[in-house]
Amino acid sequence: MSQSLATMIGDNNTHFFEGVEKLLEVWFTRKDGMTSNCDLRKIPRSQLETIMQEVKCEIISTTSNDELDAYVLSESSMFISARRFILKTCGTTTPLCCLPLLISLAKEYAGYDTVQDLFYSRKNFKRPELQVSPHRSFEEEASMLDQFFSGGRAYCMGSFNRADCWYLYTVSPGRPRYLNNVARHNLPHSWVGKVHREPDQTLEVLMMDLDPEKMKWFWKDICPTAAEATKNSGIDRLIPDMVIDDYQFDPCGYSMNGLMRTVPGGYMTIHITPESEFSYVSFETNVPQKSYKDLIARVVATFGPNQFVMTFFTSVKNGSRIGIEDGDYSVPQYIDYDVGDVQTCCLQGYDLTYALYNRFPS
Amino acid sequence: MSQSLATMIGDNNTHFFEGVEKLLEVWFTRKDGMTSNCDLRKIPRSQLETIMQEVKCEIISTTSNDELDAYVLSESSMFISARRFILKTCGTTTPLCCLPLLISLAKEYAGYDTVQDLFYSRKNFKRPELQVSPHRSFEEEASMLDQFFSGGRAYCMGSFNRADCWYLYTVSPGRPRYLNNVARHNLPHSWVGKVHREPDQTLEVLMMDLDPEKMKWFWKDICPTAAEATKNSGIDRLIPDMVIDDYQFDPCGYSMNGLMRTVPGGYMTIHITPESEFSYVSFETNVPQKSYKDLIARVVATFGPNQFVMTFFTSVKNGSRIGIEDGDYSVPQYIDYDVGDVQTCCLQGYDLTYALYNRFPS
Repeated sequence: MSQSLATMIGDNNTHFFEGVEKLLEVWFTRKDGMTSNCDLRKIPRSQLETIMQEVKCEIISTTSNDELDAYVLSESSMFISARRFILKTCGTTTPLCCLPLLISLAKEYAGYDTVQDLFYSRKNFKRPELQVSPHRSFEEEASMLDQFFSGGRAYCMGSFNRADCWYLYTVSPGRPRYLNNVARHNLPHSWVGKVHREPDQTLEVLMMDLDPEKMKWFWKDICPTAAEATKNSGIDRLIPDMVIDDYQFDPCGYSMNGLMRTVPGGYMTIHITPESEFSYVSFETNVPQKSYKDLIARVVATFGPNQFVMTFFTSVKNGSRIGIEDGDYSVPQYIDYDVGDVQTCCLQGYDLTYALYNRFPS
Repeated sequence: MSQSLATMIGDNNTHFFEGVEKLLEVWFTRKDGMTSNCDLRKIPRSQLETIMQEVKCEIISTTSNDELDAYVLSESSMFISARRFILKTCGTTTPLCCLPLLISLAKEYAGYDTVQDLFYSRKNFKRPELQVSPHRSFEEEASMLDQFFSGGRAYCMGSFNRADCWYLYTVSPGRPRYLNNVARHNLPHSWVGKVHREPDQTLEVLMMDLDPEKMKWFWKDICPTAAEATKNSGIDRLIPDMVIDDYQFDPCGYSMNGLMRTVPGGYMTIHITPESEFSYVSFETNVPQKSYKDLIARVVATFGPNQFVMTFFTSVKNGSRIGIEDGDYSVPQYIDYDVGDVQTCCLQGYDLTYALYNRFPS
């Protein structure tokens, strides 16, 4: 995305930008359960700027509704709701470095004393050697998180000796732990209902090696404004009824946040690195879908990747689980793509599905 | 198991033995498909001894039936059928070192020119620093296998920053690759039927921190003969109708192979390291079960682990898939155990399920 702020130079002086994002999602709570007056959006803007300094990026633009503050950053996006903080940053940013500050601001301004759930995830980097500490390897990232939290769990989805895999660190220090598995799935609805108010399923589609014809809209000399890029590419038709905050970088690169008008707390976010040598597009949404298969098909048709990774989180609750299955298959099937790795992982209160797709015939 | 042959000394001179096995399973075929005269059991005993030298263990005992030759080794077991070679070895053995020799013997004596499927798997070691190359880390093992095969895939099931996880390397060089996923699941039965003749689902239960009261049978001063150990412990009642070849090590440790009378190619194998400081028991079978839940319950009741890992492979074929599900749950549920990590992984033609169980209350 942001070429001006985070251009990186490869070993042989060729231009390179790491589009792959680091995604940090933190849910807060209080030990005494009295969270009705707590709100992360009470953290003042000046303090958010300090968080940005730790992460090494900047706020470019903001949109808000009753549920959610959305920020377009120089490197990707940030979303803040009453209880949930999402930071998604690409390039050589260092999102894990802001954790101590974030936790202390959440206490001082928002009234939270406990991290309830934390998820840190990312695809493997294209050029890991260009990252800075603690992001030079997932082992290093997991070690740093282990210092903050006990009981965190680090997973690798997909085959880690091949081109594509996806890492996840998850910890739930503010949740009752070691519940008997049967009991966990039979929690009284009143207890479950209190935990998360926002829609609680997240789809990510991480796309590589994209169709240059579809990437052309994200060059400023072809599309001078973000609004044109959003419209010409078809991004505005992926999930209708969004308030869109979009930004076109110079000379290329694109970011957008969308806030759903009809689904409280619903968002989508897209980030595009269009250069053909290292093209990358990420799509993420928490808006519940009747058919995730159709949504993914629209996303893939819009950007034309040769490979993509799909991850899908859904909370496991009485009857309210939203699935990603396609008939008998655990993940959607597409005529133009082979499914490589497919993995599922049962986390505490969440199910995670991972799949890698390769264009067929390649 | 074998204390006399593979005693290892820890850093502080305390006695230690690595019960965790390395498990290598190789299926052979021919490029021209003419395998009717091929048989791995044509490899002469003297050459098997040479394989043992590479692996650094010895053959102790042999049983055979029409389908299968089973070997009790100084460190665990080996099973050889017409097309499949299984080597399961504990301690500081080096099973991957025998691969070049195995492949050349399979060609020279058995008539095979192609590895069709290879699976290499193991739990994390208790003391990885005591292993020798190439088994000092899974990364090292995967790198070595990558040198032999292109397209191999390395997975880690479970969380690799916590106590327990399980590694798998799988490659299918002798199988049509990159079949469209839909096509793959709709293979004509005639083609599928040719691939594997033996029962093709494998359950492993890898148990840690076992009940000392149940481990006492595997000390020679308490049970002087293997037959007594097999009977007193209840091993003979886990899967009935087995021809059992059992061995009691001195002063402690136990191994057994069982060949099923009624299921062609059916086997089970159990290996026991009873010392309480580092107790470990592995159970493995390919015998199809009406209820895997019941079998696992019998295994766990027989040995009394505080933690155990379950892995279950099953081939994905038209309607013949055997599952490990327990009602709505993807793995069996037990009142005395919490399910920690649960993961599934769709491999080429196989589904893999992994689960970690912890005794509850601990």
